Order: sequence, then structure tokens, then C-alpha cells
Amino acid sequence: MEIKKEILELAQKSKDASASLAVLSTETKNRVLLSVADLLLEEKSYIQTENKKDIAAAQSKGISPAMLDRLTISDNVIDSMVTSLRELCSLVDPIGGIENLVKRPNGLLVGRMRVPLGVIAMIYESRPNVTIDAAALCLKTGNCVILRGGSEAIHSNIALAAIFKKALAAQQISVDAIQVIPTTDRAAITELLSLEEEIDLVIPRGGEGLIRFVTENSRIPVLKHYKGVCHLFIDKEADLEKAVRLTINSKTHRPGVCNALEGLLVHEAVAETFLKQLTDSMAEKGVELRGCERSKVILPHIVAAEESDWGTEFLDLILCVKIVTSFDDAKAYIQRYGSRHTESIVTENYTTAQRFIAEIDASAVMVNASTRFNDGGQLGLGAEIGISTTKLHAYGPMGLEELTTRKFVIYGQGQVRV
Amino acid sequence: MEIKKEILELAQKSKDASASLAVLSTETKNRVLLSVADLLLEEKSYIQTENKKDIAAAQSKGISPAMLDRLTISDNVIDSMVTSLRELCSLVDPIGGIENLVKRPNGLLVGRMRVPLGVIAMIYESRPNVTIDAAALCLKTGNCVILRGGSEAIHSNIALAAIFKKALAAQQISVDAIQVIPTTDRAAITELLSLEEEIDLVIPRGGEGLIRFVTENSRIPVLKHYKGVCHLFIDKEADLEKAVRLTINSKTHRPGVCNALEGLLVHEAVAETFLKQLTDSMAEKGVELRGCERSKVILPHIVAAEESDWGTEFLDLILCVKIVTSFDDAKAYIQRYGSRHTESIVTENYTTAQRFIAEIDASAVMVNASTRFNDGGQLGLGAEIGISTTKLHAYGPMGLEELTTRKFVIYGQGQVRV
Repeated sequence: MEIKKEILELAQKSKDASASLAVLSTETKNRVLLSVADLLLEEKSYIQTENKKDIAAAQSKGISPAMLDRLTISDNVIDSMVTSLRELCSLVDPIGGIENLVKRPNGLLVGRMRVPLGVIAMIYESRPNVTIDAAALCLKTGNCVILRGGSEAIHSNIALAAIFKKALAAQQISVDAIQVIPTTDRAAITELLSLEEEIDLVIPRGGEGLIRFVTENSRIPVLKHYKGVCHLFIDKEADLEKAVRLTINSKTHRPGVCNALEGLLVHEAVAETFLKQLTDSMAEKGVELRGCERSKVILPHIVAAEESDWGTEFLDLILCVKIVTSFDDAKAYIQRYGSRHTESIVTENYTTAQRFIAEIDASAVMVNASTRFNDGGQLGLGAEIGISTTKLHAYGPMGLEELTTRKFVIYGQGQVRV
Repeated sequence: MEIKKEILELAQKSKDASASLAVLSTETKNRVLLSVADLLLEEKSYIQTENKKDIAAAQSKGISPAMLDRLTISDNVIDSMVTSLRELCSLVDPIGGIENLVKRPNGLLVGRMRVPLGVIAMIYESRPNVTIDAAALCLKTGNCVILRGGSEAIHSNIALAAIFKKALAAQQISVDAIQVIPTTDRAAITELLSLEEEIDLVIPRGGEGLIRFVTENSRIPVLKHYKGVCHLFIDKEADLEKAVRLTINSKTHRPGVCNALEGLLVHEAVAETFLKQLTDSMAEKGVELRGCERSKVILPHIVAAEESDWGTEFLDLILCVKIVTSFDDAKAYIQRYGSRHTESIVTENYTTAQRFIAEIDASAVMVNASTRFNDGGQLGLGAEIGISTTKLHAYGPMGLEELTTRKFVIYGQGQVRV
């Protein structure tokens, strides 16, 4: 009962603050962002002292070196937060612009104004820098944010939020615009997810378990990103030199991320030539190929793929290879095993390229480009708060615009309905 | 267990059909719509025979005359479905267009293509014509639809869907594009709402009870419309002649609908003059005024408002009147009692008008216009599937575009990420 009340009060404070956040000028918002950047540098030792408490606790529990790396706020991590904040100032503020103002036959001017969503809850794991990134994106778009980071980063997250609040207070903005849930009790999340009157959107960031938990328990709309099972389809009319280059880049540029290549589909007409061209560079880069029966005939030394390999997000130097008999065969495979994240084709054929763009269902569909380009920065959004693989509100990388909505505005001269 | 399997199989059929629906040409889709219109007229007697079964069952249960009216497929209802279908053909098909195709520094062309959502579930009450309206809007936007109407309209809904399927089959389109849940068992809804892999969106249409049930039980994103508690604010610089006309139209043009006026806010500086001008026409139209203490001083004969009247959706000839001391006072009242549906101001002051447009949070904000204009047809959307009062994906009237999403498309020339 105590936690229920605490979370409700916290969310109501956010809701109360949201009306004033919505009407802040771009100049004021940018002043806060620059001031947070300055304070992060000035108060680095305080932040790192708080961070060390989390690190010590984590080490005593024996967490993995990778987790420890994500938890640590090194000088580099601080510099990167500072750079992001300064870059965010240069982005266009979407709030308040009116799109498509058209005149109706009765003289009414009807348009759509971009406005903040209101209150956004971020539920995330590990990296404490998400605290600053998320708060900054929400402030720039006039939204209040409620942050619930991983329990292992609680001291770091509270310290970073304190820096942000200091910058808000200096500009006479309600410090409730950013709130960190002060408890690590998991019941707090369940409470938060029931507050559909106070909170407009929930964004979970983390493993599939966290995202499923949030989806299953939320009455509030959720923007989510499950996994990236990305494919590259080498068409029979592919330029094989491009095909090799794109395979290498998509698979090995950064294998541990969601837009890395996991499955290679090769048209049977070019399979032998292409796979023989590819195999050396894959070996050189340390990529393990797992092939279908037909590809094993061409490359007898590779591992035989199991049924469970198809559609798996390896996040590692492993690549499934499947020979397909046609465009439709490739399309059916992608429909079955893809995760609607990123799908790319290599082809020189105009009609095949346009069919792929039109018919493949994924948040990003590409022709002759590396899957690694499905990223907010690369696609020109300027900032990214995640990649949505569900279709409501946002599909693909989410930038500032995806943290807003549009209301109808009507300028009349006394019109009534007849 | 039986119903679980049945609903899952039905949803999987929809999902399987959705890929082919997504790539239909506009011509083909329009041919189906025209053919449904023709068939509705040709098979009128079959439809009305099936409808009579529902009417007889309803009468034996003793339902209200209003419910009976909504259930009946009269000749007029058929004509109105036919007109809507023919009008829908003339609307622009949003699917397949690419917006904002821009060139990135590395030469990639990046844009966003409008695509169907996939599978949409409609859960609605009473009016069987929603079966045709919803199926038509979903077909025009390349979506499959699963329909779950009220149990009292089951024969009518199955008959109307059969007409639609006949038109689909004649164009060699999968009849699974439209499916009616064949059982009236409520467990079917709960099952449906759990199928987040198969269904992309749920739209409930009906009373608040139905909408809350769907929201609380759905793992699938929901577009919903709770209620319309709409206000008109008569500013101190209002043109009082316009103010009277807009009050009458907003309140009495059609009092039983969601964009009808429920609360009148009057600036104290004009309250006496305005209310005295208004009172006769309200009496003439049979509107009961329920006033705050101060308005009772001006109009002693009106009913005193109870606390529970503020924020109530009367859907009747009742109007709350509240005298406010300032713009901020009106804004605070709207924030507290409004339902984010429609808010309108009457003023001749430029700055006050722009503040209202920018600062009031509602799906439609208006200056000098009747609240009755918050309607897809009136605002130029051409067709409407409801009005969203939540902010994700759609806020305000939902037309064809709101039944779609956008995916990123990338045209490359072999680019890799460096």
C-alpha cells in the first residue's frame, strides 16, 4: 500500500508539471541542456563517487565484466553524454509547429500542431547514461520523464538526475520534470504501469524479458523493440562484389547490436559463385557460417544449421546461410523468421528492388545498403531513443518527432455546423 | 481450450492474408468496394431477413427502443452504407507513397513509405453497419480486419460479412481479409486480446465499459475514445453575438454525440451581458442550465450545479455554466474537468486566441468555431473510424492515414557503414 501511494504521488507530480513543460521556449530548453552538459563536467567527481558505490555493490555480487563495463561512468562516458547534449541543442524543436493548415469550404482553417505526449516513463537496465540521454530527449520535446533504471545503478541514476534537476531549477522550471523512482522494489514498476491517467507512454529498454514484462503488465501504451533478426538477400542479379562487401559490413562491423546481420539468403543461380567468393573473408573475420543442406554442398567445411538457428539473434560472429529458389522463397523466409527490424536486398534489377521495398514488412527495408544503417543517427533523425519493431505510433528508429503527437487546431470566424 | 484454438486459428488466417492485402492495387480495392455497394442493394432482402432474426431475439429480451433502432438495418441504413462505400472509392489511397525522400551525405536515399498496419481487430456494440464501414476502411488501407460485434447483432453481422466476402472472392482476394468471430462467447474477446503476434491494433467502439475492458485486457495496442466532455470558453474579448450562436450550435445541433458541448466557461467581465443574452435561446431550445453560484446571481431561475455536474458527459439538453476570473482560471478548469476531446474559445483577441491554441491539451482546439466540427468528415479526412482521445499514434479523428504506419526505405548503391 505504501509503495502504491508513493508511485501515484510521484506520477501526479509529473502530470502537474507537464502543462508548464509543454509551453517552454526552445531557447529555455536549450539553456537547460547546455547547463546540464557543463554541470556534468564540473561535478564529475561527485558523479563518479556515487557510481563507485554501485560498482562496489555489483562487484560484491560478482557481476560479469561486460555488465561492469556498462555500469561504469568513465571519463569517456561523461564526455559522450556532454557531446550528445550539445548536439541535441542544434536539432530543430518539433513542438508548436503546425502542419498542413488547409482551408475548408466553410472557411475554417484546419491544421495539426505538434505537441508533447505529456509524461513518459522510461524503464531500462544497466547503462546509467540513459538517465541523461532520456531526460534530455524528453525535455527537448516538452515531456516530463519518470525514470526507472536498473537497481544496480540506483546511486548513479539518482546522482545524474540531481545534476539535471539543478539545471532545471536554475531556469525556474519545475524539478518534477525529471523524476527517478527512488526504490529498487520491483513492485514499483507494476504500480507505474497501471497509471494510465497520469502517464502517456512507457518505453522499456533492455532485454527481451524486461520488455515482455512491461508489455504484459502495462495499461499504458508501450513503444518497444524486441529483437533484430536482420537478413541480407543476395538476388540472382546481384553485383557480387557489392554483395560480399555488404555481407562483411552488415555482419562484422559491430556484431553485438540489433542491426547486425544474422541471416544470409542467397539465390540459387548465384549461390556457388557468391559463397565461394565470400568464404575466405568470413574465415578471416572469424565468422562461423551455419548453412542449409544445399550450401553445405558448395562449402562442405561449414557447420550444418539446425532448425533452431533460423531466426536466431546471435549477436555474435555467427551467420546462417540459406539458399533460396526465388524472390518469393526469400520473402516467405523473411516473413517466417524475420523480426520486422531490418531487411536488405542486393540486386541490380530495378523491378526486383522495387518489389522488395514495397513487399517486405520491416521497420527498415533497403536496397544495396548495409543493415547497419538502421539507426537514428545514420538515417538523419539526429537523436534516437530506440528502434520500434511494432507498428503503432512509430516503426523503426525513434527520434524527437516520435516523442510527440499532433492535435487538430481550427481557426474559425464564428462558423457553426449546419 | 476449444475457443482458444478457434480464435488463434482465425487470427492466423488473417495474418497469412495480410501480406497479399498489403500489395493490392488501388483499382482492385475500389472494384471490391463498388461491388460490395452493388451487392448490398441486390441482396437487401437476404440481409433484412437475417437482421429480423436479431430483432426478434432482441425484442423477446425486451431491449430499449433506442437499442432496437440502432440494431435495425432499414432501407435508409443500407442506402447510407452504399453511399459511404462509393465515397470511399474517391478518397486517395495512402498506401505505397514515400514521404520525405532525402539524400544523406553518403548518397543513401532515405524516406518513409506508408504501409498497412496488418491485422486490425474491431470490437463494437449494436450498429451492424459498422461491419461494412470498418471492413471497407480496412480494405482501402490494405489491412485485414477481424470483427467482433455485439452478440445481439450476430446474424446481421455474419450476413453483411458474407456480402463482403463474396465481393472479395470475385476479385480473387483472400476472403480471410474480413472475418467475423462466429461466437458470442465473451471469452473470445479475451483470447483475441492476447494475440499480439497476430494482431497489430485493436479498436473498441462502444460504451465506456467496453473500452475499459479492452484496455485492461489487451496486450495489443489499443486506439480508444473514452468520452467527450467539451467546453466553450467565452473570453472577455468575445464577440457576444458569435458566442451565443456558437453556444447554441455546439449544444443543440446534436446533443447526443461526443462533440456536443457539455460545459460553458464565461469570463466574469462579460458574464452578466452574455448570460442574459443567452438565456432565452437556451430556454427556447429546451436546454437546462446548471450554474455555479455566481451565474445563479445573474440568472436566479437556473438550477444550481452540483460538484458532480462538472466534467459530466450529459449527452442531453443540459449545460453546465461556470464563471471564471481569467484565462488561467479557464485553462485550469479545462485541465481538471475536460476529457481531451474538444475545447473551443470565443475571442477577438489575437494573443488570447494563440495562447488557447498552443496551451490547451485536447485532440481538437478551436477559436471561434462550434465544437461540433471535431469530426473526420468536417475536418477533411473524408472517412472516420472514431476519435482518439489518447495521444499515441492518433489524437483526434482517425481517417485512412491513421490505419497505416510508415516504414523506412533506403535506396543505396552499395554503401557500408564506416
